[in-house]
Amino acid sequence: MNIFIALVHYPVYNKKGEVVVTSITTLDIHDIARTAKTYGISKFYILTPLLTQRELAQRILRHWIEGYGAEYNPTRRDAFLITSVAGGLGDIIEDIERSTGKTPKIIVTDARKFPDSISFNELKKELIKPYVFLFLFGTGWGLERGLIQRADYRLEPVEGITDYNHLPVRGAIAIIIDRLLGR
Amino acid sequence: MNIFIALVHYPVYNKKGEVVVTSITTLDIHDIARTAKTYGISKFYILTPLLTQRELAQRILRHWIEGYGAEYNPTRRDAFLITSVAGGLGDIIEDIERSTGKTPKIIVTDARKFPDSISFNELKKELIKPYVFLFLFGTGWGLERGLIQRADYRLEPVEGITDYNHLPVRGAIAIIIDRLLGR
Repeated sequence: MNIFIALVHYPVYNKKGEVVVTSITTLDIHDIARTAKTYGISKFYILTPLLTQRELAQRILRHWIEGYGAEYNPTRRDAFLITSVAGGLGDIIEDIERSTGKTPKIIVTDARKFPDSISFNELKKELIKPYVFLFLFGTGWGLERGLIQRADYRLEPVEGITDYNHLPVRGAIAIIIDRLLGR
Repeated sequence: MNIFIALVHYPVYNKKGEVVVTSITTLDIHDIARTAKTYGISKFYILTPLLTQRELAQRILRHWIEGYGAEYNPTRRDAFLITSVAGGLGDIIEDIERSTGKTPKIIVTDARKFPDSISFNELKKELIKPYVFLFLFGTGWGLERGLIQRADYRLEPVEGITDYNHLPVRGAIAIIIDRLLGR
């Protein structure tokens, strides 16, 4: 599989539209790791520039991979074996280049639609090309604009059937991955 | 919309295969309410026979509907306005009968496939018929067998593209609703 995903805690917006670092949510890690493992994602990166937050994430991963958790819940261990912590987007890109020999094409998602947004069907066709892809999923109130503009693809938003569009990030990621990679 | 969903905390299995009552997870309520609201579900029921657990859920709902939370986060309020707490399946069925005049057809989901499981495509065709439908989603290690056998439809499991199939209930519900009701 040629697909990587990252949960981005910086740079993202807060409620007021300021660029901030969001905190890691333990449950995000558990949920997204399981979803990634189910759909054959190569690696799930938790991206935060804060050292203490990265250490927290590492401690959680170690508990479930090597510690008591590995015995208590082996399926969680399997999901966490593809999960990794990174301090910056550059580190993630280098890590992917090291393991695949290719620079990943970057796909961003957002609750808004952009003039050049790509549809789910069109992106599905791209994903079978011989490239490597990295999805960036924003926490808080979404990815910083510059990150969105520099990406190779801007995926159209997930829309339900109402005007209400406030899916939790965990649910949105599950839906996006299922639409693009589900059988 | 003619579709109702319930998150079932009893009767479900624990890891050892015993029938138990699971505890309410606050985040399940938040996530599933938002997903339900996004896809136009009529009502989301949190089902538990334990009075103290129902009171806990009610307190959370009240905080976000009437309390400080309503002002702090209005989109959460909108999602919780379609969320309700119930002590038993009978109460839910009566509530649906009162509001729609119809007895709901019950759909269960499980990580296993049954000889008479219905596919997503087939169920999608059923859902446009002039019936009312109630989805039961199990917590813990899944819905008790009797509940599965008595249901009108057993939906085929969500499958990713690997043998690993341990989606979190929040993610599985998001995927199921999107597959059946998404645009």
